[in-house]
Amino acid sequence: MKIYINPAKNKWTEIIQRPQINNAALKNIVSEILLSVKQNGDEAIKKYSLQFDGVELNDLKVSDEEIKAALLVVDNELKNAIQLAKENIEKFHRSQKEEVKIIETSAGVMCWRRSVAIDKVGLYIPGGTAPLFSTLLMLGIPAVLADCREIIVCTPADKNGKVNPVILYVAHLLGLKNIYKIGGVQAIAAMAYGTESIPSVYKIFGPGNQYVTTAKQIISSEGIAIDMPAGPSEVAVYADESYNPTFVASDLLSQAEHGGDSQVLLVTASQQIVDNVKKEIDLQLKLLSRKEKIEKSLINSRFVIMENINDAFDLLNEYAPEHLIIASDNAELLSEKVINAGSVFLGHYSPESAGDYASGTNHTLPTNGYAKAYSGVSLDSFVKKITFQKLSKEGLKNIGNAVEVMAVAEGLDAHKNAVLMRFKNL
Amino acid sequence: MKIYINPAKNKWTEIIQRPQINNAALKNIVSEILLSVKQNGDEAIKKYSLQFDGVELNDLKVSDEEIKAALLVVDNELKNAIQLAKENIEKFHRSQKEEVKIIETSAGVMCWRRSVAIDKVGLYIPGGTAPLFSTLLMLGIPAVLADCREIIVCTPADKNGKVNPVILYVAHLLGLKNIYKIGGVQAIAAMAYGTESIPSVYKIFGPGNQYVTTAKQIISSEGIAIDMPAGPSEVAVYADESYNPTFVASDLLSQAEHGGDSQVLLVTASQQIVDNVKKEIDLQLKLLSRKEKIEKSLINSRFVIMENINDAFDLLNEYAPEHLIIASDNAELLSEKVINAGSVFLGHYSPESAGDYASGTNHTLPTNGYAKAYSGVSLDSFVKKITFQKLSKEGLKNIGNAVEVMAVAEGLDAHKNAVLMRFKNL
Repeated sequence: MKIYINPAKNKWTEIIQRPQINNAALKNIVSEILLSVKQNGDEAIKKYSLQFDGVELNDLKVSDEEIKAALLVVDNELKNAIQLAKENIEKFHRSQKEEVKIIETSAGVMCWRRSVAIDKVGLYIPGGTAPLFSTLLMLGIPAVLADCREIIVCTPADKNGKVNPVILYVAHLLGLKNIYKIGGVQAIAAMAYGTESIPSVYKIFGPGNQYVTTAKQIISSEGIAIDMPAGPSEVAVYADESYNPTFVASDLLSQAEHGGDSQVLLVTASQQIVDNVKKEIDLQLKLLSRKEKIEKSLINSRFVIMENINDAFDLLNEYAPEHLIIASDNAELLSEKVINAGSVFLGHYSPESAGDYASGTNHTLPTNGYAKAYSGVSLDSFVKKITFQKLSKEGLKNIGNAVEVMAVAEGLDAHKNAVLMRFKNL
Repeated sequence: MKIYINPAKNKWTEIIQRPQINNAALKNIVSEILLSVKQNGDEAIKKYSLQFDGVELNDLKVSDEEIKAALLVVDNELKNAIQLAKENIEKFHRSQKEEVKIIETSAGVMCWRRSVAIDKVGLYIPGGTAPLFSTLLMLGIPAVLADCREIIVCTPADKNGKVNPVILYVAHLLGLKNIYKIGGVQAIAAMAYGTESIPSVYKIFGPGNQYVTTAKQIISSEGIAIDMPAGPSEVAVYADESYNPTFVASDLLSQAEHGGDSQVLLVTASQQIVDNVKKEIDLQLKLLSRKEKIEKSLINSRFVIMENINDAFDLLNEYAPEHLIIASDNAELLSEKVINAGSVFLGHYSPESAGDYASGTNHTLPTNGYAKAYSGVSLDSFVKKITFQKLSKEGLKNIGNAVEVMAVAEGLDAHKNAVLMRFKNL
């Protein structure tokens, strides 16, 4: 844990620094796997699943029987929790639907745009240390709401060839039928290029480790869309004198448990707050199951004392956190200072974990400072907004001359001609 | 010009094929320039401007005097045309502003999102054969409407160190003050990394040649956002019996004049239509100034006779054209079949050139089939949509249990703890 007191601006670069990843070495390994799947399809997928996940797969697709069996395993308390989360996520994402608005820009010139679902999308759900069924809710619900015609899900199987039953339960609940039990770079490759049993898609969503992230970056540069670039998860908490040290500590700890590379940043006005939060962290940490991971993550955490509130938010905006918690009675007012963040949690009763699971907002958010230019996943991520225009004869009369004059000024007389030929016919 | 008659589906891949670009060789050249600018700043910029554009630059920034001089050169007819275009583009893009909607997902759980401008953006305006001031309108207007705080423009100077006066006029009209007279890869590098005189930005917009496109692709994989991946411009026209051959020919020609690698596709129900359009192309072509370029582009054009209308639109959706013109009395009805396209022009009096300049829609659109997953530039391209949430005590009571249950099921007990600590306090 590093503490900064009223750091000068030239110190900020150090404070907002994210963990560096050695990309070149990673890229070579990942490129080789991508190419192999592109060339050898299912055979390569099976080879890498054995090599990396230690699982021998016959069928890559999850069968109806496997899904039926999974439904029986998930207990009712969890089913009810998932149902509540689903309803809230649906409500919030449904509100993002855009109505068609026809705009008459000049008389007779009608312009509008229509949101059309991306026809084929692929959702990657990591397995690994925790089965992230919540991510399937966060990606699957907007994909279904957007009306994507083909939605496929890739998620790794365990060593017995089984996919986590809660993931299968959620897929079933959302009506998703095409689930493939593969993970890692080979899953990204399968969705990007297609194989004998897995169809290719136009856009790939979902978090993953460094290998998956690098694979997504490479296929993105090949023209397949991805949700966003990614890095380790992170939270920044701003706490003023109205804070509750127990709450703030619990929020920092919940972020830190994601893993050793998670980022935790506390910005606050006084040394007193820092001291109290540290004390609370020590108390709560003892009882947590992921204690070792959390301790590793806390080593890299930064506590910043910033007496000037505008400087504090300037620093937070420079950091551009994935999650920003404003632990203040004045959270709503302070939130107007936020320029760069993925998702913002206001007040003392809005823990990040609410948004991670069940409040309704999406938890797939820009990390690593990408919040300066990227939004989190929303319904928008699953549609293209196609523009349309229809000009009446009168409409063309009204703007045709401007088009001609501008086309000529750009040296494009065939552009002018397209108007001229119509004018002759009016 | 290649003609296909009711092509079977296995022929479609050939029809929708775009020109291939040798990326590896390009990448090496471009990477070297990027690195050099990153390391040597303005000095490298000046070196490459001399080497590639044949211009010796002292100041990189366009001065107030240069802008004042430009204003005197642009004639009134063009100023009026630009004014009309500006108003229409503003109207359409202003209609894309999203109001904040507060959604109460569960009682006491308030979620909303707010569009916040990307703080720093860079607009690249190519010089080359034509001064594309219309592109500055298409990028500058939404950047200003979105309220981006820092908007910089890069556009190459001619051999005398002068920027095209119409580009300077448009910049002035939009209130853009930071214009740098540099182009090519070095301009993209400057905006990505910053130099002594050019600030770095978070997102870079604008078209360019293969070098510029490759540079944008590389800096995008480094985490700087770009508008979209790009390829040569293209149009697809669907014409049924209600078509006017003169109009259709003029539309195909206006696309073809962009350059030898432009793509032109005509899909229609009968041989008769193809023959008549070809005749009209020959007639009109003779009078056009860019005849040679157009002839080169027409060699690669494809005319497809598709008797079945659903097959016709399936093929068009597979092609996913940047521009789609539906030359039919039933254009609006047919437009419901459109799944993949950048911008769609309906009926006989909506030439692509209307949208290129003055109707109000944006002309920065996804090419190369990217319309399957990408939208064109809009107001959305200049903002991030940040989500916010505020839970009251009651709100946390209503969803807290679901959060706890789901967190435990994912093995994340510090996530549960963040709720539990607050429950203890209720």
